Amino acid sequence: MKAELEVKHKDLLGRVGVLHVGGKKVETPAFVPVINPVNQVVPPEEIRRRFGCGIVITNAYILYKRFRSKAVEEGVQRLIGFDGVVMTDSGGYQVLVYGDVEASPDDIAFFQESIGSDIAVPLDKPTGLVGRREAEKTVEETLANVRRTVELVGHGGRCVWVGPVQGGLYRDLVQKCVDEYKRLGFSLYCLGSPTPLMTAYRYRELVSMIATTRQVLGTVKPLHLFGAGHPMMFALAVALGVDMFDSASYALFAKEDRYILPEGTVRLEQLSHLPCSCEVCTRFSAKELRELESGERFRNLALHNLFVCFQEVEAIKQAIWEGRMYELLERKARSHPALYEAFQYIFRDEETLQTMALHTPLSKRRGLFLFDTTSLQRPEYRRMTEWLRRWTPSCLEAAVLVSHKAVVNRRLEKLFEMLAKVVGDGCFEVFVHDTPYGLVPLSLYHVFPISQTTYPETLVKQLEDKIFREAAETLAKHGFKKIIIIETRRETYPGYSRKLAHSLQTSLSKEVVYTTSK
Amino acid sequence: MKAELEVKHKDLLGRVGVLHVGGKKVETPAFVPVINPVNQVVPPEEIRRRFGCGIVITNAYILYKRFRSKAVEEGVQRLIGFDGVVMTDSGGYQVLVYGDVEASPDDIAFFQESIGSDIAVPLDKPTGLVGRREAEKTVEETLANVRRTVELVGHGGRCVWVGPVQGGLYRDLVQKCVDEYKRLGFSLYCLGSPTPLMTAYRYRELVSMIATTRQVLGTVKPLHLFGAGHPMMFALAVALGVDMFDSASYALFAKEDRYILPEGTVRLEQLSHLPCSCEVCTRFSAKELRELESGERFRNLALHNLFVCFQEVEAIKQAIWEGRMYELLERKARSHPALYEAFQYIFRDEETLQTMALHTPLSKRRGLFLFDTTSLQRPEYRRMTEWLRRWTPSCLEAAVLVSHKAVVNRRLEKLFEMLAKVVGDGCFEVFVHDTPYGLVPLSLYHVFPISQTTYPETLVKQLEDKIFREAAETLAKHGFKKIIIIETRRETYPGYSRKLAHSLQTSLSKEVVYTTSK
Repeated sequence: MKAELEVKHKDLLGRVGVLHVGGKKVETPAFVPVINPVNQVVPPEEIRRRFGCGIVITNAYILYKRFRSKAVEEGVQRLIGFDGVVMTDSGGYQVLVYGDVEASPDDIAFFQESIGSDIAVPLDKPTGLVGRREAEKTVEETLANVRRTVELVGHGGRCVWVGPVQGGLYRDLVQKCVDEYKRLGFSLYCLGSPTPLMTAYRYRELVSMIATTRQVLGTVKPLHLFGAGHPMMFALAVALGVDMFDSASYALFAKEDRYILPEGTVRLEQLSHLPCSCEVCTRFSAKELRELESGERFRNLALHNLFVCFQEVEAIKQAIWEGRMYELLERKARSHPALYEAFQYIFRDEETLQTMALHTPLSKRRGLFLFDTTSLQRPEYRRMTEWLRRWTPSCLEAAVLVSHKAVVNRRLEKLFEMLAKVVGDGCFEVFVHDTPYGLVPLSLYHVFPISQTTYPETLVKQLEDKIFREAAETLAKHGFKKIIIIETRRETYPGYSRKLAHSLQTSLSKEVVYTTSK
Repeated sequence: MKAELEVKHKDLLGRVGVLHVGGKKVETPAFVPVINPVNQVVPPEEIRRRFGCGIVITNAYILYKRFRSKAVEEGVQRLIGFDGVVMTDSGGYQVLVYGDVEASPDDIAFFQESIGSDIAVPLDKPTGLVGRREAEKTVEETLANVRRTVELVGHGGRCVWVGPVQGGLYRDLVQKCVDEYKRLGFSLYCLGSPTPLMTAYRYRELVSMIATTRQVLGTVKPLHLFGAGHPMMFALAVALGVDMFDSASYALFAKEDRYILPEGTVRLEQLSHLPCSCEVCTRFSAKELRELESGERFRNLALHNLFVCFQEVEAIKQAIWEGRMYELLERKARSHPALYEAFQYIFRDEETLQTMALHTPLSKRRGLFLFDTTSLQRPEYRRMTEWLRRWTPSCLEAAVLVSHKAVVNRRLEKLFEMLAKVVGDGCFEVFVHDTPYGLVPLSLYHVFPISQTTYPETLVKQLEDKIFREAAETLAKHGFKKIIIIETRRETYPGYSRKLAHSLQTSLSKEVVYTTSK
């Protein structure tokens, strides 16, 4: 069987879509709760009912060890009591933790087909955080296992087989995996072993690993991230093109009395209040939660943690749909300095930025928020400044520079009356001179996102030098004969027009006229 | 009656406390839902039950017009069905909207006493956004009304009377109000008419108004903010010392099919998903919510909006308790550029910063997160750099500069062994040279918050020039005879030690030795 992703909305490299697996459908990006096959703190059926969850993952190796015949007889869906998509992990994580497993790739492959996993993973050898030599070995071993699995069961059986990308931080090894899986006809890919990076807060390397995988994989095929850990990084992963991610944190953290929040984790004894509206936090106070009997506490914390994970995914989908994924990242980046660093890192990578620019819609449901110079990395801004550089004037007589306050619709007629007086009968081009985009020709001013951008006044002041320098370059490049700067009544930045005029007078060897309409 | 605020935890100018009103208690900061006395979309009793809400506000003027005798007979608590603290507004907002009201200050004062309001407001004349002349007039009129009310009913009756601070953006007028209310013996203050500022997203002026009020009022007396509007600004208001704030937005927005989120408002038709875990958002999808019959939709949206408002207050209390109010503000600031601007503005105001430094605890439950240079405005950082400036060395023979990586506990012994070899028998002071705090004497390195600070590696690189310059100043000031920079095995910033050595060699006329322990 093959999986197919139907993309509905895109922003940055994230997408909202529907993953088709056999006859079943899952909305993506999808949070995939890890289900312990032995002992379930929140039953899968309850997770489905409460959160509309369409996909879970469980461990084929543990099923194989503990419930082999029952699993084959009942099928994995009935065994764990979940009628959505059931994904099974091969036991790769057990390899990472215990060094090896007592089952061959063949055993695990046949087993997953025979219990009817909807999505199955060939037995892989996670790279983890190791040196080059060791990483090569894990990739070789993984590729050998995967080839063997494809040979044995192919893509024609009951399972959608996933290509487990290993190679960790080594780009060429990741490339090697992806190339081989493309050749082997995989329709779904997964990225292995980010957990050691996450537990060490090495988010910068994590995003680098995801970005590399997306780059070599291209943007069409769906990508699963193993062990995504904490909801504070879901948005970063999705923004880089991750379509689904599993996590056991809701239960693991709950077991250790840790309460998940969208921006971090708090130990139960470090909670004075419960900043959450879920059923658990509505029913109990922090004190009451602490005083629950251990089993009850575990279940309620796990349930709360699930609420936070699913809520975060809804926030991400809403952000993609609205076209505000970048704004969501700006907020998430302030959850932890390591996330901030990862966020900065993503938007310094030219290859990722260029792919993002291709995949971010040209027009959006809502305008843009810019906060500081970091915000200028976003694809809509970069794309627009690129367009502005390519624009050419239709008249070279004169360039008239005015404030954005003069070109709001109700003042436009007045403006042209005034310009006729000042400039006379000759033709001229009008530019808006005080935007974070720099000099904007009036004809482009109402093109998305320029006039739909909201920014603090401080930003233009902060960018003043850059704006002045680039204005001079633009005006010189086009070869306008005359530059006219008109100061209008309401200046956002007092003295700005005069200063700009002075700067242009100094840097351009042209006639620069400064006049006021006040 | 007088009110009293018992402060339990403080951070920045925010505090978690208990407001005592008669025999009743309210936890602060308190969100005070506005109850429409005529038509209640969510009954006050339900708000109390669901959210543990201890205080609501309703409008004395409307009660006076519509239910005069019934209100006097039953008391306001029974009339609206709320047995917590009931605050009544005088009708000042009606003055702002309709120009005047058909009741004298005396009528409104006697009426509030006779219906047994727990907290009552003298009929004030909101300043709104007007010119100086007009503002003076509103303050004069408000003061006259307030004096008259105090004369008539004093502070000995059933109500706690609130001093309504007017004067808008004029500091001297605010000062005039506060001085007069202190003289008149008010125990609770409220700040009027921020609504026009908020609906215009003029958050910078709003925080300026709040900061001014706190400055002239001092930090002891509790302060109420009228019409606080949106949960995205609750944290800013609390960080400036607001203890309670009312808002009708939950209902007003719901009426217009607007869905509140902690970081903004979304029109119902602009929602594809519901990023919230409350009862309403768990029961309905965005589509189902849109398709509800209008009355049901209103009620469910209002209920959801209340969940978000109360949740935000819990997040604020938790942040104060943890000592992470600044981190919360950093995130909230990215909700809207106008909020970001207001946030920046607060932390540029020297008077506010100094008061904050006094009120922010010296030690906290959790360490500090620094993100970028903006984070360096926070009081803990400023205070520590101040202390570092006052530190004096006990030995002037030599200053030894090492990386923070060399002073983590398990390496300290090794470090001193190595130092003995390099420096010899003479005495020396050890400094850590690569922290965002600049040069830190080893003796202070484990004092909160230095070694409890988490920051992106990029920050120290970004601050390099500043760190090098200040290091030179510090070393010159103390007059060390010799400077020794030791490069240890793991440098966080490759080449940093060597660069620092070079910089000090250039700027200091001392012996600067650069050596390596690798």
